[in-house]
Amino acid sequence: MSSRQLSPLIAETIAIGSELLLGGRTDSNSLFITEELSQLGIEVRFKSVVGDDQADIVNVLKTAVRRAKVIVMTGGLGPTVDDCTREAIARAAGRKLARRKEAFEGLQARLAKWGRTPNKGQLRQALIPSGATVLPNPVGSAPGFWLSWKGATLISLPGVPSEMKAMIRESVTSLLSSHLESRGRSEPQPIKRLLFHTWGLPEADVDVQLKGLISKRVPVDFGLLASPMGVLVSLTTNSRARVKEEALASLAQEVRSRLREWLFAEGQESMEEVVGRLLTDQKRTVALAESCTGGLIGHRLTQVPGSSAYMDRGVICYSNKAKVELLGVPPDLIEKHGAVSAEVAAAMAKGMRERSGVSVGLSVTGIAGPAGGTATKPVGLVYIGLDDEDGHSITKEHRFHGDRTIIKQRSSQAALDVLRRWLVTKAIP
Amino acid sequence: MSSRQLSPLIAETIAIGSELLLGGRTDSNSLFITEELSQLGIEVRFKSVVGDDQADIVNVLKTAVRRAKVIVMTGGLGPTVDDCTREAIARAAGRKLARRKEAFEGLQARLAKWGRTPNKGQLRQALIPSGATVLPNPVGSAPGFWLSWKGATLISLPGVPSEMKAMIRESVTSLLSSHLESRGRSEPQPIKRLLFHTWGLPEADVDVQLKGLISKRVPVDFGLLASPMGVLVSLTTNSRARVKEEALASLAQEVRSRLREWLFAEGQESMEEVVGRLLTDQKRTVALAESCTGGLIGHRLTQVPGSSAYMDRGVICYSNKAKVELLGVPPDLIEKHGAVSAEVAAAMAKGMRERSGVSVGLSVTGIAGPAGGTATKPVGLVYIGLDDEDGHSITKEHRFHGDRTIIKQRSSQAALDVLRRWLVTKAIP
Repeated sequence: MSSRQLSPLIAETIAIGSELLLGGRTDSNSLFITEELSQLGIEVRFKSVVGDDQADIVNVLKTAVRRAKVIVMTGGLGPTVDDCTREAIARAAGRKLARRKEAFEGLQARLAKWGRTPNKGQLRQALIPSGATVLPNPVGSAPGFWLSWKGATLISLPGVPSEMKAMIRESVTSLLSSHLESRGRSEPQPIKRLLFHTWGLPEADVDVQLKGLISKRVPVDFGLLASPMGVLVSLTTNSRARVKEEALASLAQEVRSRLREWLFAEGQESMEEVVGRLLTDQKRTVALAESCTGGLIGHRLTQVPGSSAYMDRGVICYSNKAKVELLGVPPDLIEKHGAVSAEVAAAMAKGMRERSGVSVGLSVTGIAGPAGGTATKPVGLVYIGLDDEDGHSITKEHRFHGDRTIIKQRSSQAALDVLRRWLVTKAIP
Repeated sequence: MSSRQLSPLIAETIAIGSELLLGGRTDSNSLFITEELSQLGIEVRFKSVVGDDQADIVNVLKTAVRRAKVIVMTGGLGPTVDDCTREAIARAAGRKLARRKEAFEGLQARLAKWGRTPNKGQLRQALIPSGATVLPNPVGSAPGFWLSWKGATLISLPGVPSEMKAMIRESVTSLLSSHLESRGRSEPQPIKRLLFHTWGLPEADVDVQLKGLISKRVPVDFGLLASPMGVLVSLTTNSRARVKEEALASLAQEVRSRLREWLFAEGQESMEEVVGRLLTDQKRTVALAESCTGGLIGHRLTQVPGSSAYMDRGVICYSNKAKVELLGVPPDLIEKHGAVSAEVAAAMAKGMRERSGVSVGLSVTGIAGPAGGTATKPVGLVYIGLDDEDGHSITKEHRFHGDRTIIKQRSSQAALDVLRRWLVTKAIP
């Protein structure tokens, strides 16, 4: 694997808004920006969050310009007096603010579409620091702008995600590409990131499976991230060193082969998308019988556009009465084994499939807690059932840890993985 | 309203971990820390996120110590070579790292419980900078620590949320309280934050309703935050000025009276918790018939512990066939009005209630998109139905904007709000 050291172009994101400090909302804009910049080989190495306070924003800006060559700010461009990003940038960079014709006209045109004229607050949105270039906002009213300051490119965008994203795609990436070119970085190294999603193996064991995969000489960062939905493995190149296409591909192949048993998706694909793709390919349909997950599996499957092609129906049978009435689970089965048992999970999946006429029935019954656990059936005990049109039945027992939310999440993931594995076996001729 | 200016104690959070930059995960630890510190009257004014890079962490630390008196770091204390927070702090603050007896013993005791002995990586977790005090970890293996540096209190905690939270509660708040006292801040001003959750009124209109509520002289920050779940109104005091209890209460009362029509919850209570509380108080039960929400309403209701007392069942009737078979919706009604219609919503709610014998049936049918819309029935058209044991029926039409996820979220919120309003009328004797 050949590697040549390149000097990285360091970037910083700055998210502005008191609500980002106070807990109303986390800054998710920076994740999108980081991803887009990495495609250009620009590494976001610092993220800052600051409230709607002019002095604090100036402080953060002065820090950023000392360590980053690209600074992308989001937020604080709105029409209210709180919004002081324009003023803070002008003050930090020693510029004057003045109404800019193209910003005003864009604003006016946008508001005219909505049948309105700019009010006093909105007029402030046309104030642009001297020397800055306006970045049109194709979606909303607030224009953005960029300027050169102490050798850095400073970009200011609205905080509304849809506006920020449109402006990144329509103006910012081409702007930064041309800056890279003019700096003689004619071959920027896009940062490549390969993601492998696993389910069913604890983080420490994933680590063991992948031991020795990456030697210190190879300029690829290896990451593990555990969540209730499984363990995410990442291979990330950086902008400082070249990694040959084939070398990365062979590394990916090695990850696949070592984790084959637990790997359910790659890249940005989610479990529900994988299951949806397999159901669509095989022209199969599914019906759900959910107890402890309470509708979460249905919610997840129906997040995927086009899911109406394979998602026929589901029942949320929280009460035993509902299990009997909606699924035909025999009352004496519940009496004998309890509602949380492999037997009832199997009967739920079978009843669901038979009553709906789908290809496959999938069920979950368990104890999500915090109450309802016993010594023999503790909180976290969950049974998955699957019943198919050939009369085959699968059940699986899990003992999960965590709070109610986590147990529901893990249960939904476990159930979808049972369905996925079944679909995979059906795909093989 | 009396107000006296106090000098604020400024804090900064620093979240460490390359996965926080690269998009695997957002930093949610800082929200918890901000909340806990605000109770002590300490204002988090800056948040930083940085990768697992020693030089970058040193850079961020040196910036933080120039502007904050309290610095709370999370992450980078794990056993792998990536974890370099200890080293970065030692380097930035000019300390030596050495194995600390109490850290080692705590680590050993924790691992012994799990039947293990510390490996080489875990031994690194007992390395503590000179002059620092160990903060025990009651939940996991990595100890934290704190030290005084250039007049600031620097606290380093693990990034695992459960460990971080336990350590904040068990050690950090008492530590900071005693620091405040020793600085003569015997009466720290806790930052108070009142939250009002509204549904059904656009952000701009909420703003209009609350116009003139807060004069410039009153030291309370007023915030609005729009999301698919509604508009959140916040009143926040700051540590710089005292606000009398009664003054804040009368302001809260004014918000309540102006937003009465749209206010569904206060504080940390969610829509599903409000609905659950009302159902429990009234000993009523509910059954759901979900089409476009696909199980999301059931998922939300069953997130609340104890929901099995009032959540009897639900059906996810994605196909027309399922609407007919599971709910007894007349096929000619679907034929005549379409599956997305007030008539079908009403029939779904009625069928659900009658078949399950609950107090109230709640239904949703709509077009979540991106496909499936027509000129007369566009994407975002949603009908809510409610049917009660007295034979009363309510339907409500909505035309939502946004993507599939947003339309599902808004639909679930709208449906739960219909149920909440119905429950509120039932509570009045």
